[in-house]
Amino acid sequence: MKQADVVVIGGSAAGIPAALTARRHYPEKSVILIRSEKQVLIPCGIPYIYGTVGAPDKNLIPDGGLQSNKVEIIVDEAKELKPSEKKVILASGESVSYDRLILATGSSPILLPIPGIEKKNVYAIRKDIPYLQTLLEALKTTKNLVILGGGFIGVEFADECKKNRDINVTVVEALEHCLQIAYGEGTCRCSLEVEDYLTKKGVTIITGASIEKIIGDESVTAVKLSNGKEIPADALIVSVGVSPNIGLAKEAGLAISNGAITVDTTMRTSDPNIFACGDCASKFSFFTGQPSAVRLASIATTEARIAGANLFEIKRKNPGVIGVFSTAMGNLTVAIAGMSESAAKKSGFDVVAGEAEASDRHPGGMPGESKMWVKLIFNKANGELVGGVVRGGPSAGELINGISACIQSRMNANDIATFQIGTHPAVTSSPIAYPLVNAAEMALKNMKG
Amino acid sequence: MKQADVVVIGGSAAGIPAALTARRHYPEKSVILIRSEKQVLIPCGIPYIYGTVGAPDKNLIPDGGLQSNKVEIIVDEAKELKPSEKKVILASGESVSYDRLILATGSSPILLPIPGIEKKNVYAIRKDIPYLQTLLEALKTTKNLVILGGGFIGVEFADECKKNRDINVTVVEALEHCLQIAYGEGTCRCSLEVEDYLTKKGVTIITGASIEKIIGDESVTAVKLSNGKEIPADALIVSVGVSPNIGLAKEAGLAISNGAITVDTTMRTSDPNIFACGDCASKFSFFTGQPSAVRLASIATTEARIAGANLFEIKRKNPGVIGVFSTAMGNLTVAIAGMSESAAKKSGFDVVAGEAEASDRHPGGMPGESKMWVKLIFNKANGELVGGVVRGGPSAGELINGISACIQSRMNANDIATFQIGTHPAVTSSPIAYPLVNAAEMALKNMKG
Repeated sequence: MKQADVVVIGGSAAGIPAALTARRHYPEKSVILIRSEKQVLIPCGIPYIYGTVGAPDKNLIPDGGLQSNKVEIIVDEAKELKPSEKKVILASGESVSYDRLILATGSSPILLPIPGIEKKNVYAIRKDIPYLQTLLEALKTTKNLVILGGGFIGVEFADECKKNRDINVTVVEALEHCLQIAYGEGTCRCSLEVEDYLTKKGVTIITGASIEKIIGDESVTAVKLSNGKEIPADALIVSVGVSPNIGLAKEAGLAISNGAITVDTTMRTSDPNIFACGDCASKFSFFTGQPSAVRLASIATTEARIAGANLFEIKRKNPGVIGVFSTAMGNLTVAIAGMSESAAKKSGFDVVAGEAEASDRHPGGMPGESKMWVKLIFNKANGELVGGVVRGGPSAGELINGISACIQSRMNANDIATFQIGTHPAVTSSPIAYPLVNAAEMALKNMKG
Repeated sequence: MKQADVVVIGGSAAGIPAALTARRHYPEKSVILIRSEKQVLIPCGIPYIYGTVGAPDKNLIPDGGLQSNKVEIIVDEAKELKPSEKKVILASGESVSYDRLILATGSSPILLPIPGIEKKNVYAIRKDIPYLQTLLEALKTTKNLVILGGGFIGVEFADECKKNRDINVTVVEALEHCLQIAYGEGTCRCSLEVEDYLTKKGVTIITGASIEKIIGDESVTAVKLSNGKEIPADALIVSVGVSPNIGLAKEAGLAISNGAITVDTTMRTSDPNIFACGDCASKFSFFTGQPSAVRLASIATTEARIAGANLFEIKRKNPGVIGVFSTAMGNLTVAIAGMSESAAKKSGFDVVAGEAEASDRHPGGMPGESKMWVKLIFNKANGELVGGVVRGGPSAGELINGISACIQSRMNANDIATFQIGTHPAVTSSPIAYPLVNAAEMALKNMKG
């Protein structure tokens, strides 16, 4: 039997930083990481395998970081967890005992119970190299690809699969617009611009419709939509969300809530020696404390850094899910942090928003220019920032993180309107036009009006 | 005699946002902006006139924002201020009376008292279109350009003047390294990489030397350095800092401190009806409260937003100068917010730093990749972030603003290590490797060690 002070189950966006954080905070402790994959995929990079990056083996997380930090890696499947014996049993028969355990078992893609879902050439987005390789091969002969789900993964797959391929790509989204779960009801500019971008690239977008039936003998040949239409399809990708991997924890008797392993704000499960983080762990909203269904690699890493630091002494507290999303297509980057206006209203907040737009260079003629548009959403009652939306060029990916810092620090519109920025002609908007600051000013104006 | 509720003197990075903020916060008040320039240059864009942008008239701040916000523009010079009569006398003889006045008179470049400084082809960086046009013309026949001062403006001029010109460019810097005032003593990577970039482009950098004498009859022909060397020069650009424009205020009897118009934390001068902001106003450090000599367009706009909002009711407070700098050359962007390690130590802080580096894409092969390096500096006594340094690609320009938000919110290393980021393969580092978060982790490790 193997033994370690700290055992981590799972080797992706939660498991790796959990192990590294344990190492940093408790350098004297031994750390073992158990994972079932020989090599680990970069989860957010999966859509890019099918276009920009080109192959699953170019989208891997190297093991160097774990190795140089003396984290022992065991490639095997954890089959059983025995909390009373503080022991994990592996598929190989080997067992590993722990003093503290971190469950970072992740999630699996949901496959909706659509008639025909079992047919060949129907794909989920599994984090599995051979499986993703099979999809890559299948796309070589695919003429008509249908993607079910117009969330971030769905639209990214649509854009990437269309690149350098003579292929018809159709996205089927049940809601009124793509990315609506993030950007909210109504017509957020970010949703519309992504739809517009994809349409211009030749992607067909069908919204307000679901797939009722998957047609074909062995393989899919067409899909029948809820609106009665039938679309030819020789491959179908289903990207409609994920379900936490809780089997191991559930069978071991750990508490479960809302389909995830119950954790408190220290990331501890119902067993005081077991922590959980990432997609498998329960989540709550930063804004309301209510259960949150948001699952992101970036949330997983944050939770892992809390869990890893708290193993032998409580040092950090999980403030809850803010939810920071971004995606990019061509030179268009759209991002959101916190609540959209409609999500805030649904949760019972009275909010006020402000918007501003400017060139992200100054003067506008500087190379690499995009329009940067920022919308900020404030709680009217206490003035705190509860959400931010950005549409811009590549630097929008960092600007949204600045906004997330403002949300986490509970900054108000006056704080942001007078917040000390740095600017430069080649990399940002001008200080006068800086849209983050001006959006806060506009929100203040709208608060009064 | 003209009359307005609010009169702003100065039409650049302080004057414009001061007028716009007054308009937003007091929509019923009339606002007049007096400036001596017919057209206003983008101050930070001036170096780019000589390369990327190409001409002064492509580097202008349009008047549209002022006009659409009903700010009346008077192009004239304010010659005299009579606080007792609440009146400004213009060069044309016209006078303008005010209820509240904002002085945003800016600064002028310093010309050191070097023998020969009056010679032809010796240039300061004046915010003056015909003057800058003259320099542009002069560069057409210049074979040997010497730039005195290796601060941000100096290195930017060196890079831009070298572009598309058959010209020898030499930067002469008195300190050990370029950008040392910002990045501190020792060998900050950002200083070294900028020097390296310029050297590879063919710029000669001479540090630890000053100019003792400017040689030539009417025009400069060479400069004699403190190290005894003589360098041929048919043009010399002096970029060694600025001096606040305080003549108007001083003659009117307003209090002056450290060569600038004295203001309190509401941006009010010694006269309760007169505010000042931007380069002309006194400044203090966010960290120590001591006088600050940092003068930046971005600080000017922040102060203007405080002054404009406070005119008739105190709404905002100036927390003091954090100081956020960035510059970019080719694909290299370097930035700093707050105190460098050596500046913090000089001010009496006991600090601990942490560093991390990662690709700013994930996987690394995604287009537009740069290495992103972050160093964070914390006050050991209370754990607060007091400085951040970034070296990366273009998105470093927004990342440094996120760091500035963290400084302003007095976040500590645990806050930053667990701060909720958003990431995307095409626009940021991976969530595991995200260098801002990992630099905070490394600082925590170093705090213990």
